[in-house]
Amino acid sequence: MICNNLSVTPDGRLLFAGRDLRDLADQYGTALYVMDEDRIRLMCRTYQKAMKEAFGENALPLYASKACSFKQIYRIMKEEKMGIDVVSPGEIYTAKEAGFDLSLAYYHSNNKSDEDIRFAMECGVGYFVVDNEEEVYAVSRIAWEMGLNQKVLLRITPGIDPHTYEEVATGKVDSKFGSAIETGQAMEITKKTLALQNVTLAGFHCHVGSQVFDSDVFIRSARVMVEFIAEVRKETGYLPFELDLGGGYGVRYVETDPVYSIEESILEVGRELKEMCRLYDLPLPQIHMEPGRSIVADAGLTLYTVGTVKRIPGYKNYVSVNGGMSDNPRFALYGSQYTVVLPEKMKEDCDFPCSVVGRCCESGDILQENVQLPASVTRGDLLAVLTTGAYNYSMASHYNRVLKLPVIMLAAGKDYVAVRRETFEDLTACDL
Amino acid sequence: MICNNLSVTPDGRLLFAGRDLRDLADQYGTALYVMDEDRIRLMCRTYQKAMKEAFGENALPLYASKACSFKQIYRIMKEEKMGIDVVSPGEIYTAKEAGFDLSLAYYHSNNKSDEDIRFAMECGVGYFVVDNEEEVYAVSRIAWEMGLNQKVLLRITPGIDPHTYEEVATGKVDSKFGSAIETGQAMEITKKTLALQNVTLAGFHCHVGSQVFDSDVFIRSARVMVEFIAEVRKETGYLPFELDLGGGYGVRYVETDPVYSIEESILEVGRELKEMCRLYDLPLPQIHMEPGRSIVADAGLTLYTVGTVKRIPGYKNYVSVNGGMSDNPRFALYGSQYTVVLPEKMKEDCDFPCSVVGRCCESGDILQENVQLPASVTRGDLLAVLTTGAYNYSMASHYNRVLKLPVIMLAAGKDYVAVRRETFEDLTACDL
Repeated sequence: MICNNLSVTPDGRLLFAGRDLRDLADQYGTALYVMDEDRIRLMCRTYQKAMKEAFGENALPLYASKACSFKQIYRIMKEEKMGIDVVSPGEIYTAKEAGFDLSLAYYHSNNKSDEDIRFAMECGVGYFVVDNEEEVYAVSRIAWEMGLNQKVLLRITPGIDPHTYEEVATGKVDSKFGSAIETGQAMEITKKTLALQNVTLAGFHCHVGSQVFDSDVFIRSARVMVEFIAEVRKETGYLPFELDLGGGYGVRYVETDPVYSIEESILEVGRELKEMCRLYDLPLPQIHMEPGRSIVADAGLTLYTVGTVKRIPGYKNYVSVNGGMSDNPRFALYGSQYTVVLPEKMKEDCDFPCSVVGRCCESGDILQENVQLPASVTRGDLLAVLTTGAYNYSMASHYNRVLKLPVIMLAAGKDYVAVRRETFEDLTACDL
Repeated sequence: MICNNLSVTPDGRLLFAGRDLRDLADQYGTALYVMDEDRIRLMCRTYQKAMKEAFGENALPLYASKACSFKQIYRIMKEEKMGIDVVSPGEIYTAKEAGFDLSLAYYHSNNKSDEDIRFAMECGVGYFVVDNEEEVYAVSRIAWEMGLNQKVLLRITPGIDPHTYEEVATGKVDSKFGSAIETGQAMEITKKTLALQNVTLAGFHCHVGSQVFDSDVFIRSARVMVEFIAEVRKETGYLPFELDLGGGYGVRYVETDPVYSIEESILEVGRELKEMCRLYDLPLPQIHMEPGRSIVADAGLTLYTVGTVKRIPGYKNYVSVNGGMSDNPRFALYGSQYTVVLPEKMKEDCDFPCSVVGRCCESGDILQENVQLPASVTRGDLLAVLTTGAYNYSMASHYNRVLKLPVIMLAAGKDYVAVRRETFEDLTACDL
């Protein structure tokens, strides 16, 4: 299976985190997000351990919470001693309400309004990852007004094309994010920030891409960033305390996705980075990475019930489920691949080609095309889409006025509700 | 301008429904959906009048509420004596709470669960637009259990490619929607439905595509449907009371979109349809159409405040606003075109090429590319994206934990809140 928290019983039933999915469907109804808390914690510990070994004891992984954000996730991150990357007042609020210590929060966004900046400072957000000049001036001014000193990192665009698909390619010069080294804008914002009052420049940040399966992108980023830091020292004398290498490690959505070791990759990045620092005679800064997808994606699956099965002779077959682009828009947005299975028919031959589609009144409401399912697929069957822990709940909409699904968490053989199912009253709460 | 509810004052300020947008921004804050109630009512009356003239006094337009669904919209539709097309229990609930008479509701969906069907019957939904065989059996069984008789229409796939983009092409044989004439499945489901108890076959439905600017698609659909009805009469003796020609009339998103007259197009469809019925010696059934987009799209705009303006020499410029794919995912989903303006700088030359991007931490969070704005564009400017009344509020997500925008309605020179702005408490209401 694509992740080792999945297994199949001798009589052909899928177990996820050791649990039979029918039990969960009976108890909580479908459609349903199911998440494996133990897997989330395992991935946090994997990053903690590998990063300390690679970069030293003060290295800190920041959970990129836009991948999946609700109160319980922040409680888990707190217990796992992770930092967090937040991208909006809504994420900051949620983390705060969950009791997360916001001095370990790093606030990203290409566009923070004055109101957003003030809110984040009031909440005690530890670090702003400043995207651009306009922002750093606003941060300085508002910090002055509020009588505080704000730690910031500058988001630098290293000019690397991660050879991945366009929507997630953010380290290129032509990006809405960050200040580019190539154009001189990175050096310029660094100098201006150093001259600003009420801000402390903690260091630099970069993020190149998503769904990467090797060390290459991180090593190239590290190399460019170390060269930039050396340049900054030469021109200004400044040395950063922190260097954030961003996120991007991939997860296996389908069997053809590569198998790789995050630990080994991080160790490799560590060796290269230390070597680079030696070369430029720089002290190794405190290193951050920002895993989001790789912490939560394969800790999640979505459990649906099959409805209409439509066979159009000479054309195609359609299997409809009681969810769709409203709970998982990623196929509609990016054509993302997923593994789709019938959890109670795992031993049956999969020789029925079909599109797995949602309930929404829109042709593009497709969860996956060119799927092979057992030919016995019928109304009432359970259907699972695997690896949906990242960018599913967090991207869910109310399109077609479909209610948002609950998130059921599995931990140490138990299950509990992390996010309850929406009600019609929730749906119309803002309607006057 | 692309719609006649837009005008520009001599000093270069955009008026929408006669209102200066700065006043609304000051009163309600940004980002903000603004809707023109008078325009919505005008479009309802346009359809009512044209359809009665074209098809007779009993013709009825059904508002396709998935385009924009909240309580106040259903109150307007009730006052305008429109029928409605609903696609989910959530829409049914919202319409019911708004006091809409559900005997005039037509319930669509390619995938209705038994629970959905029961809920709709309990609410007194007048008509089910049955997508497939599986559904009509379920409707019959549940109607029997509940001791009632359910009126149904059958959704027929006429096999027409509307030459529009793939996501909205739903009348082709290879579609998740309906039963195809070509494969014999349409005739089969008709015969089976006629043999079923507790369902009354009111007639047939078809829907070919979206964003169409002429009568051609409707005329071709009408022709295919009349031929099908003649065939059904020959084989079974059955004659439908109702024929629903679906929706799909386009709206002008950009100046290059065609100008056309919905009234004239409907009159043309009427002439053709009557002629076809004469030819096949069929009585003219009661005709429905299902406008959604063309009722609400240009009755809406989204008002943002500009934040970061990023100039990357040799590459591109980025103008960020305090919203994005969370309130309008249509560029991310389909590359949809929109007209973008600075409402307070309408007389300035637009010679600053840029991408207008959102606040979300995602490269694909783009509202529009290749926009020309005044070069003076700066933090604090108002920015309006026009023609956002359809499929914006209804497709909004909480991606990045961004709060959903309010909907402000303008009517007869007044303004009122139709949907209030979400709060952080709303956002975390389901988090345990």
